This record gives sequence, structure tokens and C-alpha cells, in this order.
Amino acid sequence: MIDITLLGTAATMPLPERALTAVHLSFSGRSILFDCGEGTQTAARKAHVSLMKTDLIALTHYHGDHIFGLPGLLQTFGCLGRTDPLIITGPDGLEEAMQPVLQLCGSLPFSVSLFHLPQNGVSLSDLIPHWGSDSMLIPVPTRHRVESQGYWFSLRRPGKFNPAAAAEHGIPQKSWSLLQRGNPVTLEDGTVVLPQQILGPDRKGLNIIFSGDTAPCGTLVEAASGADLLICEATYGDDELACQAEKYGHCTFSQAARMAVEAEVKRLWLTHFSQIMENPEDCLPFAQKIFPEAVCGTDGMKITLRYSDDMPLPHRP
Amino acid sequence: MIDITLLGTAATMPLPERALTAVHLSFSGRSILFDCGEGTQTAARKAHVSLMKTDLIALTHYHGDHIFGLPGLLQTFGCLGRTDPLIITGPDGLEEAMQPVLQLCGSLPFSVSLFHLPQNGVSLSDLIPHWGSDSMLIPVPTRHRVESQGYWFSLRRPGKFNPAAAAEHGIPQKSWSLLQRGNPVTLEDGTVVLPQQILGPDRKGLNIIFSGDTAPCGTLVEAASGADLLICEATYGDDELACQAEKYGHCTFSQAARMAVEAEVKRLWLTHFSQIMENPEDCLPFAQKIFPEAVCGTDGMKITLRYSDDMPLPHRP
Repeated sequence: MIDITLLGTAATMPLPERALTAVHLSFSGRSILFDCGEGTQTAARKAHVSLMKTDLIALTHYHGDHIFGLPGLLQTFGCLGRTDPLIITGPDGLEEAMQPVLQLCGSLPFSVSLFHLPQNGVSLSDLIPHWGSDSMLIPVPTRHRVESQGYWFSLRRPGKFNPAAAAEHGIPQKSWSLLQRGNPVTLEDGTVVLPQQILGPDRKGLNIIFSGDTAPCGTLVEAASGADLLICEATYGDDELACQAEKYGHCTFSQAARMAVEAEVKRLWLTHFSQIMENPEDCLPFAQKIFPEAVCGTDGMKITLRYSDDMPLPHRP
Repeated sequence: MIDITLLGTAATMPLPERALTAVHLSFSGRSILFDCGEGTQTAARKAHVSLMKTDLIALTHYHGDHIFGLPGLLQTFGCLGRTDPLIITGPDGLEEAMQPVLQLCGSLPFSVSLFHLPQNGVSLSDLIPHWGSDSMLIPVPTRHRVESQGYWFSLRRPGKFNPAAAAEHGIPQKSWSLLQRGNPVTLEDGTVVLPQQILGPDRKGLNIIFSGDTAPCGTLVEAASGADLLICEATYGDDELACQAEKYGHCTFSQAARMAVEAEVKRLWLTHFSQIMENPEDCLPFAQKIFPEAVCGTDGMKITLRYSDDMPLPHRP
């Protein structure tokens, strides 16, 4: 299962009840932060989400409302005694964008590595050795005023574990979870047992897509195909602001909803609301007339996505 | 009169109800921001304080908890169409500290000037031409782990205006306020009339001192002498943490109170609370046993200081 929390749902400038963009994803004690606007650490505290165990921060682009929370967050990590390395990924321009951020942070007691995801993504165990090989992150080119990318995250669901097969191969019980996570196990006699020898065929996993900032975009629709959750920017509510949305490289509510329909996603969360919308819910009908299950994100909104189709409704704080 | 608002009262890391350090001061439509921790713009919105008219940001030092709100605030100024120039002042190292901040901001539609205050301060009209000559800002060396300074701000109260003398000198009524603010007036025939020709002797003005981060410090006590308000850092509540306070260049509640007594200030507001204090009020007796009028700052706490001694109590939101 995967826990998703919207930490901030504001575009451009923060409001008292709407922090700037950040999304937290966690599963099996591992966690990724997508974007980090100013106020992300406070938003996380409000939402009772610990960011300390974040191994990876994935940035969609380098506009201030998506990255100005980084210096404070990294210094807080340092103050709280973090020593675990941190990886930051993002589109082209990562080194230039992070240079002043890291300069502001000064000396930190943990390493920060900048990493460019290959076009076809990575198994996250290649990036973070202690993660299992069951999760994958793929960058999705998006259409904003600057170089930008969304992210497709998937959690593979291994086939059913066969205890009889495990016993037959002499695998000690303490190593079962390794196989369940998709890793091979080396026995004392040097024999290597592969997951596929013990597990049944893969079952349907979970996948989530976060748009970052983008105008309506074919690559995003394609990547989002069948996703369990699309978290999509929807900066402007009213259809009448479509011109403004296009000018600034953003979506309206109905454009986001149309992408959700085209991609046949299971759930759509709208986020990244312009401060001109006092209450984004007022504009929700623009999205719901196209994608009836569309939901307006709010700061601190959480969902636990489970493998079964028996999903609870999102919890709003 | 002067309006003071504590925007943030947290040290090191922000809490949901305690933003990082920032103090807003305004008088006659002019305003100064002291320090700008992450979250200052949100804190100002919560406190119903507009920062748009801030002409001067005075930094006490360059630790992240005092400056990481700057990139976001400056970009917000830009987004809201500010064109008025902004001056930033601070202790030695200002250029180096602001370089990555301004690099993060990118292009802004207003100018940002970095200015070092001379040791004996400036009349703010020398710094900001449209301000009257009735206000003054003096840096006060403080004792922190890095180069740091507090600020002494004073608002002069000119003598009583004498309308008969003004009429005698042929001064048009529209120019009276100039004289009242301490500026000379040039008549149509070229005669220059000085304020002292029309106004009685200066009356008692107002002065305020903000400590920034500091351990107990003689220069601060000296500068604070008789101040209407001392806003003093008091990072640690319990006297037992005096060693820790000394180690990190901070004050305990009772040390801040002792400075207030020595300086014979009228009011003492404590601020910059460590996150280890869940409720700073619990430690207030440490301060009040020394300076009974000591008050724990809270985010959004305001006071209007008036020339008369008839002062209202601080308003807490």
C-alpha cells in the first residue's frame, strides 16, 4: 500500500490555509517528497507527516513556489541529526538550480546527491540501495514555461509467495521478505534463488502520477493511463481562464479533468490553486461535469492506496 | 505612534503555530521588516499585515531561520507588481549572504540595494528619500555565534506646532506637515523656513529595540536604556539551560529579563523560542520574577505604541 499526503496546494504564493506545492508519498517506511515549496516543513508537521526519512526529493521544475522550502528543510534535517544521504532529482538545470539552495544551507551533516533520471526511469533500488526493487520512478515530460517534468511512480505487487517452494529451496524464513520485495537470496552454500522461483506471477500493483506544473499535455495523459491516482495541477478554476492558463503553462479544472478521462485514471486530485480562487471547491463542478470523481485537494489531505479495490475515501484533516 | 507585530516567534525550525523570526514595524504608512524567516509571508497574512509597502528589511544575522523567507517574499513582491525599490541592511557579510538569495529570486521588477548602516546609524530619510527625518535606525552589536546586530529604532516627536508662527512666516497650510515631520520648507520667494522656527522644543518620542539572536550583552543593555519596548530573544525558558544558551549564543528567559531591568525598559517581549518549549508561557515566571511586566510573544501579537503614556495592552490574535 502507498500513503499519499498533499502537503501544499497553493500556486505562486502561500496562503494561511494553503501552503505551496509539495506531495509526500510513502510505502513500507520509504518515502519520496515531490516538490518543496516554502512552508513544506510546517505543512508536514500540520499533517503529521515526518519528512526525516525522505530519501528522495523529486522536483518538477525550479520555480520558487516549488523549491523555496528546500533550504529550510535541509537545514532542519541537519539540526535533527540526519546523516542518511539525500538524493534530489529534477529536470535539466538541476545543478544550476540547486547551487544557490545548497550555498544557503551551508555545511550539512549528510550528503546531497543530484541525480538525473534516465528517460525510461529507474528502479528505485538502483538509486537507493536499501529500497527493494519493487518501486519505479519515471520522469514524464510536461508542458510548462520552463523545462518541467511530472513523475510516474509505480509499486510492483509481486506474485503470491509459495511457502512450500521456499521450504523446498531451503530458504530461511528471515529471507522471505527479501524475495517478496523482488530481491534474490543467496543461500549459505552459495546457491542463488530468484524471486520468480518462489513467487507466482506478478499481480496488479499501484501507480500514481504527479503532474507538476503543466498545460494540457499528451505525454502526461499517456503516462497516466489507468493510474490509481492522478494528482494534477489545476491552477485556474473557471473555463473562462483557459487563455490565461495557456499563457502561463497551466491547466484549468476542466482541462485536468479531460486528461483524467482520456487516461482513464481511477482517481483525480486537483491541486496548485491560484490565489485568485478563494475556495477552489466552488469551481469543482467544472471538473466534475467531465470527470465526476474529481476531488479538490486540500492541505493535509491523505489517502492510503491499497492493492485491493476496496479503497477508503480520502481523509481531510 | 508605531505599530509593532510579531510575525514569527520560533527559533531554528518552524512549528505550525510558531513561524520563524520576523518582526514588522510601521508608522505613518512607512514600514520596516526585521528578519525574515521561512514562512514570514504566510505569517504576515495571518496577522493581517501587508508587507508590500516595506521599504527596508533589516537583518540581524544570516542564519537560515532569519533569512530563508526572503526568496519567497521578494518573488511575491514581484508577482504583485511591486516597483518600489527595496533596501536590505544587515551586519558584515551582507553581500555574500544575499548573493544566493537574489540568485534564487531571479529577475525582479524592483531594485534591491544592500546597505551597511554606519555604526552611529542613519536618519531613515537619508536612506529612503520619501520618509520624513523623524525616524532613526542604529545597529547594536550583539553577541551571537556569528556576526550579528540588533536594531534600535526611534521615532522623534517634534515640538508643538505653532500656527501663529507659521502664518507669520507665510507658510501655506499644505506645507505644515513637512515642518511637523522635521523638514524645512522653501517659500515661493526662496526663503527657507526651518522646523525649529515654527515648532516648540522636541517632545519625548518613542524607541524600540530588537535584539536578534544574542547572548546577554552589554551593548544591547546600553542601547535599550529607557526603551518603550525591548523585543528580546529568549531561546531557552528554564534557567537550567543557561549553559546551552551560552554555548549557542542565546539568552534564557531570566537573562533577557535581567537585561530589561538593567536597561529600565518600559516593556519586554520575549521571542525566538526553542522548539523544545512546547508552551513558552510555562516558563514565563523565570522572566517575571525579575521583570514582572515581561510578556511571552506569540505569532501575530501586536501593540500600538503611542506618545501618551496611556498604552493599551498587547493584542493577541
